[in-house]
Amino acid sequence: MTAALYDRFRRVRAETLALAAPLSEEDCCVQSMTDASPVKWHLAHTSWFFETFILERFERPFHAFQPAFRMLFNSYYNGVGDKHPRPQRGMITRPGLAEVLAYRRNVDERMAMVIGEGAASSGLGELVELGLQHEQQHQELVLTDLKHLLSMNPLKPAYAQRGAVHATLAPEHRWIGFDGGVVHIGHAGDGFCFDNELPRHRQFVEPYALSSRLVTNAEYLAFIEDGGYRNPAVWLAEGWDWVRNGGNGESGGSGAIEAPLYWHRAESGWQEFTLHGMQALEPDRPATHLSFYEADAFARWAGARLPTEAEWEHAAASCPGDIDPCGIAQLFGVSWQWTSSSYSPYPGFTAPRGAIGEYNGKFMCNQYVLRGSSIATPAGHTRISYRNFFPAYARWQFSGIRLARSAWKA
Amino acid sequence: MTAALYDRFRRVRAETLALAAPLSEEDCCVQSMTDASPVKWHLAHTSWFFETFILERFERPFHAFQPAFRMLFNSYYNGVGDKHPRPQRGMITRPGLAEVLAYRRNVDERMAMVIGEGAASSGLGELVELGLQHEQQHQELVLTDLKHLLSMNPLKPAYAQRGAVHATLAPEHRWIGFDGGVVHIGHAGDGFCFDNELPRHRQFVEPYALSSRLVTNAEYLAFIEDGGYRNPAVWLAEGWDWVRNGGNGESGGSGAIEAPLYWHRAESGWQEFTLHGMQALEPDRPATHLSFYEADAFARWAGARLPTEAEWEHAAASCPGDIDPCGIAQLFGVSWQWTSSSYSPYPGFTAPRGAIGEYNGKFMCNQYVLRGSSIATPAGHTRISYRNFFPAYARWQFSGIRLARSAWKA
Amino acid sequence: MTAALYDRFRRVRAETLALAAPLSEEDCCVQSMTDASPVKWHLAHTSWFFETFILERFERPFHAFQPAFRMLFNSYYNGVGDKHPRPQRGMITRPGLAEVLAYRRNVDERMAMVIGEGAASSGLGELVELGLQHEQQHQELVLTDLKHLLSMNPLKPAYAQRGAVHATLAPEHRWIGFDGGVVHIGHAGDGFCFDNELPRHRQFVEPYALSSRLVTNAEYLAFIEDGGYRNPAVWLAEGWDWVRNGGNGESGGSGAIEAPLYWHRAESGWQEFTLHGMQALEPDRPATHLSFYEADAFARWAGARLPTEAEWEHAAASCPGDIDPCGIAQLFGVSWQWTSSSYSPYPGFTAPRGAIGEYNGKFMCNQYVLRGSSIATPAGHTRISYRNFFPAYARWQFSGIRLARSAWKA
Amino acid sequence: MTAALYDRFRRVRAETLALAAPLSEEDCCVQSMTDASPVKWHLAHTSWFFETFILERFERPFHAFQPAFRMLFNSYYNGVGDKHPRPQRGMITRPGLAEVLAYRRNVDERMAMVIGEGAASSGLGELVELGLQHEQQHQELVLTDLKHLLSMNPLKPAYAQRGAVHATLAPEHRWIGFDGGVVHIGHAGDGFCFDNELPRHRQFVEPYALSSRLVTNAEYLAFIEDGGYRNPAVWLAEGWDWVRNGGNGESGGSGAIEAPLYWHRAESGWQEFTLHGMQALEPDRPATHLSFYEADAFARWAGARLPTEAEWEHAAASCPGDIDPCGIAQLFGVSWQWTSSSYSPYPGFTAPRGAIGEYNGKFMCNQYVLRGSSIATPAGHTRISYRNFFPAYARWQFSGIRLARSAWKA
Repeated sequence: MTAALYDRFRRVRAETLALAAPLSEEDCCVQSMTDASPVKWHLAHTSWFFETFILERFERPFHAFQPAFRMLFNSYYNGVGDKHPRPQRGMITRPGLAEVLAYRRNVDERMAMVIGEGAASSGLGELVELGLQHEQQHQELVLTDLKHLLSMNPLKPAYAQRGAVHATLAPEHRWIGFDGGVVHIGHAGDGFCFDNELPRHRQFVEPYALSSRLVTNAEYLAFIEDGGYRNPAVWLAEGWDWVRNGGNGESGGSGAIEAPLYWHRAESGWQEFTLHGMQALEPDRPATHLSFYEADAFARWAGARLPTEAEWEHAAASCPGDIDPCGIAQLFGVSWQWTSSSYSPYPGFTAPRGAIGEYNGKFMCNQYVLRGSSIATPAGHTRISYRNFFPAYARWQFSGIRLARSAWKA
Repeated sequence: MTAALYDRFRRVRAETLALAAPLSEEDCCVQSMTDASPVKWHLAHTSWFFETFILERFERPFHAFQPAFRMLFNSYYNGVGDKHPRPQRGMITRPGLAEVLAYRRNVDERMAMVIGEGAASSGLGELVELGLQHEQQHQELVLTDLKHLLSMNPLKPAYAQRGAVHATLAPEHRWIGFDGGVVHIGHAGDGFCFDNELPRHRQFVEPYALSSRLVTNAEYLAFIEDGGYRNPAVWLAEGWDWVRNGGNGESGGSGAIEAPLYWHRAESGWQEFTLHGMQALEPDRPATHLSFYEADAFARWAGARLPTEAEWEHAAASCPGDIDPCGIAQLFGVSWQWTSSSYSPYPGFTAPRGAIGEYNGKFMCNQYVLRGSSIATPAGHTRISYRNFFPAYARWQFSGIRLARSAWKA
Repeated sequence: MTAALYDRFRRVRAETLALAAPLSEEDCCVQSMTDASPVKWHLAHTSWFFETFILERFERPFHAFQPAFRMLFNSYYNGVGDKHPRPQRGMITRPGLAEVLAYRRNVDERMAMVIGEGAASSGLGELVELGLQHEQQHQELVLTDLKHLLSMNPLKPAYAQRGAVHATLAPEHRWIGFDGGVVHIGHAGDGFCFDNELPRHRQFVEPYALSSRLVTNAEYLAFIEDGGYRNPAVWLAEGWDWVRNGGNGESGGSGAIEAPLYWHRAESGWQEFTLHGMQALEPDRPATHLSFYEADAFARWAGARLPTEAEWEHAAASCPGDIDPCGIAQLFGVSWQWTSSSYSPYPGFTAPRGAIGEYNGKFMCNQYVLRGSSIATPAGHTRISYRNFFPAYARWQFSGIRLARSAWKA
Repeated sequence: MTAALYDRFRRVRAETLALAAPLSEEDCCVQSMTDASPVKWHLAHTSWFFETFILERFERPFHAFQPAFRMLFNSYYNGVGDKHPRPQRGMITRPGLAEVLAYRRNVDERMAMVIGEGAASSGLGELVELGLQHEQQHQELVLTDLKHLLSMNPLKPAYAQRGAVHATLAPEHRWIGFDGGVVHIGHAGDGFCFDNELPRHRQFVEPYALSSRLVTNAEYLAFIEDGGYRNPAVWLAEGWDWVRNGGNGESGGSGAIEAPLYWHRAESGWQEFTLHGMQALEPDRPATHLSFYEADAFARWAGARLPTEAEWEHAAASCPGDIDPCGIAQLFGVSWQWTSSSYSPYPGFTAPRGAIGEYNGKFMCNQYVLRGSSIATPAGHTRISYRNFFPAYARWQFSGIRLARSAWKA
């Protein structure tokens, strides 16, 4: 098990580096908004996580790579002590990228020692797994934060060249019905899960139906062309304020919101900024980079609604292999799917003791749950019970829409 | 039924006037913050509600008292057309209070005609009842908004003289257990309810316990004295930011939040601003004017949590007569009780068509549900299924804490 | 002299009441923006000035009308102690207007006693005169602050009915030349002046010319129609930002600035909000309610510039009787005239000792001087050496434009 | 002359590169606040200046290095067209530093061609000289902006190692008197000057005295220890607000201002962040990194005042060789010296036609003039008539205090 654990450790850590490989020192250093972090910070913070929560406890004697990093790369753990303010993560030009990469290598070597010795250590395996899952979360953020940074550049540079692209056809749209009743929700089995997926518990779900696929760009464009962004009747009151205020200054602009985050209306037609640069909008691709407000407004305009997270999870659990035997496509690997559920603790939830208990619980307020996973989610980092969460205004993540309907009143 | 309806109309309308009777024109005109409205605005808006939603439809011919009022006293109904901006409600020195009172009388007279003729009219009775329930909601706001206004005055004036006060003793504290299971939630029966209380539906509730009474001032003071406002470990992350930022500039202050809204630490001890002026803090009274953040932090500090709204309603429904046979005191008439439930539509919820559909549904985002009722709630305006809601930072309402515990894991 | 002083005291105080006479309690209570104050506050603060700076010193024994007023109606004198925050002056619904009027009467009676006894008192006469000049300044503010408040009301109510209006013809426009050289600037003689008009001193002025009259509405309209508000080339950089940002949220609006403060483009043509309500724009009247930025931009567009305050004062001093023998019309009684001079101390300026020294000196930063007087300035409150001052963005005062040109290079 | 011009061009351009030589790509990319710019941006913008204002006109045919740079590196010239928003200069991770250095080399080569051919070209020499003076201004900004960036890093890194330091002794302090009268102000002679130094003109100056040297750290510390930052009586009203509001959020902090920008009170005593890292405060060095508000408050506390710019220039002009025969030390090369003069046009000032006319004139509002030069000013970039200017709150420049006194009333 030690060898398997170390092998997994090595592979996950290498994947983070691979994501940063095409980037310059400058690309890695800059913070484009408070919600996003520099790539270099992600590289350092994920190492900090292993050093702080594992090496401090298991390495004998413990030698900090650089004691100042304990504060510098602490994200939000009050239990660890002081932390560098989040809006100033981009000020850290030193340590430079080279030193942060040396920090990574140092932590990797020390972790190799600890994992090698650690078969008998109480709790080591669980903590390493948590650190790796944490690192995978940041792998996705590396891509979404970098995409936002590049989008702020008027030259609209590309992160990567695009390979051969095959025309995408949207799967057929159908409503898939579910009977509901008392269902079991939350992580089952022995595998890893985050604390917020527990405890497994029962919920009562009324009969409902889910859309067989995600909303496409063409469908979202119809909403725009029907005046969706100018019609308060389809928006939550808070969403309408967000539209009129231009997303509270998102991107420094002052006008009203008129389209998804990265859409741009050119003379030649709609374009979309992607990790490959500006591209003509592809009508059959799932619409993405939408806020909760936009997802909710689209659903209302379409005569539908967003699913609850229990509805989503129950449906996903009915699909063996996650691949669609029940007819539900695009559950994973395309776009995160906004649910109508505010992020809150499951009945009986208790956060772990100590700083690690700050991982999830303290964010359970005024955020909405997204389910599934996205094109940027690392392979193997998906679960039916996975609960992603962001504030209602956030749209720099790969976030899209799956529609739902209540069936029980029909 | 017409006579009974009119009689009720007359009595509810008179009650609003009675609340404003002790106030000067100046007291009635000023707006103390964006969230609050002037008393004069409440007097006018509640009349506007009857004129716009009932007289426009049922009066033949319709004669607006003053056509400009349609825009001036529209609160938030986009379906009615333009509206005066909420932060500028206090700019309306004209019409003066006398003219607004004349508007009320005019609407009352026209409503008397319409109600008198209206036995056969389709939907009239339901709309009148909605207008009266709406008026009762604003009666509570008259008191809470006025209290906030008076608190901004360094002279700390009183709204009313205090009658003889008998020493209050807090009821005994006990945990009352409930088995849970599949329970029915939402309004039942033929009586009035708001659309957000429907449809009645099933939820699964795990076993739980509720506190037999509300948290007292003495208990909340123990939280303060234990450093509650200085310990991030008991706060939601967003709540901790709120504390450090002084409630986002609440009352113009810049320091951190250190106590409930109206508490003041004098040399002689803690005082509390009330509608009777400044008073020595009474230890056995329920703590009130707390934000959701404070309620949640206190609960965590106390080793408990806030109840969900289903838990609260199921418990209340188990108490015949609302008065405590099952041992739960202070459900109604003391302080609204924060729940951990984000305000969201019940499964199958549909808003009514037209502007009236904006009453509740569009606010179902980033707000938390409060249950019960308060000392300021009009008699007869309480229901077990009633869903009050405010943003997590709001604390100018009479909002307190009832603790809950999960019992099922024990 | 005592009788004459008291007679003057009585008349100035009565004039303030006359200005407030047409107003309701509500009109007098509300504060429409931080820069403006409620009329009731002006009524109280001017009385506070006499009570604090004269009665505290000369009344034996001193009996404060209400000790709390010392803090409540202190405007900005740190030397007097605490003060109620300026943005919250509108929160003071109590004391009501009646009590403030009683405060005025009480102060008037006590002042009558002190003036009657005070012939021999050292400095009494000077302080009374300062208090009356102070009161006259607030008389102008009563009108400008009230005008702003009424303009915030969508019903656009009038302060006063308009009497018979005779068509106004703009005086002929000519350039009046001055040789300059070493000129004397600052107050001369024994009459009253504010400390900021002293000491009289010398300045060197190059040859220049002033416009014979103020810029008219018709001329300003030509600037607008020529795209003046859309052409950055005629604006100061800070002024251009002010235009694009909509005056930093002035009036709650979000669009760019497009016209003077109270102008409104109706379908029937341009209108202007006045103390008599909305009126069709009169082309020959002097343009008013302009910011320094607008005055400067108009001047640049017109191929001219604003005068310095020395140029303005030197020209005014060349006009015996202030009435135009040298050909300069509209120096006084129409609109204050922006100068290009930043408000700064004259060489040798020293503020008086004590709190009264805060009257002028501490505001000599980032404000621009206006000269002349306006339609709202009380009779007798004008001087050639008078220095009014406001921040560059301010335009709720009656502020207009007199153009200047440098002649020496021709 | 061509050879001399090209030689000077080459040397000034090389000096900019030398300043950036010790920096990493990351150091050069980040923007630490809106007022500051990234070093890479300075490197590019100074090249843009030559390409836009010289090569576009004189190169035949003109080949832009990269057409998008015309917008990307435009600082504020509306006459040139669109510009990248100032607050987002730090978002430009691409072009990277290497490409910007290539841009510099390309511009240098094309400038060499144009200068070589350009003997006969009308106006070429003047524009090249303007471009070099512009580049020298940015050389100083490279150091001040970088210092601010490094100060935001909690590790407090150094820009450069410190050489041997000899103890500094403050020059003796004396008051040097001047008679004043009609003096000539503004640039004289044929050498280069900026448009804002013209035309040379007359001003009348009353008798005054200047301090023989700048205020020292020890003297400024005495002000702090005497409660200077807690005593409103010595501050301008706007300055006192600035102190209480913590410099409007400078550095993200929330407390009141308590010391110069880079001072830090450690347990071991006062320290100062410098380009060599944190250093113990040296009592005899001139105090620097002070805002206009602080300079003005210190002067008032010391019973003196700031000089006007005419007083400063007249005194400096009385010192042959700038080196102190009249007894005035530290005029140049130490710290810029705040004057009490608001930045405004000299009588007869006219900005050049076209975009280049935006260089100075449009900033003449709400800024204060500083005279002299600082330790960061390039050699040869000083003049007696030089007018530097910054807003009253700015203190990231090397800005200090020279005191003045009015002598004429004594």
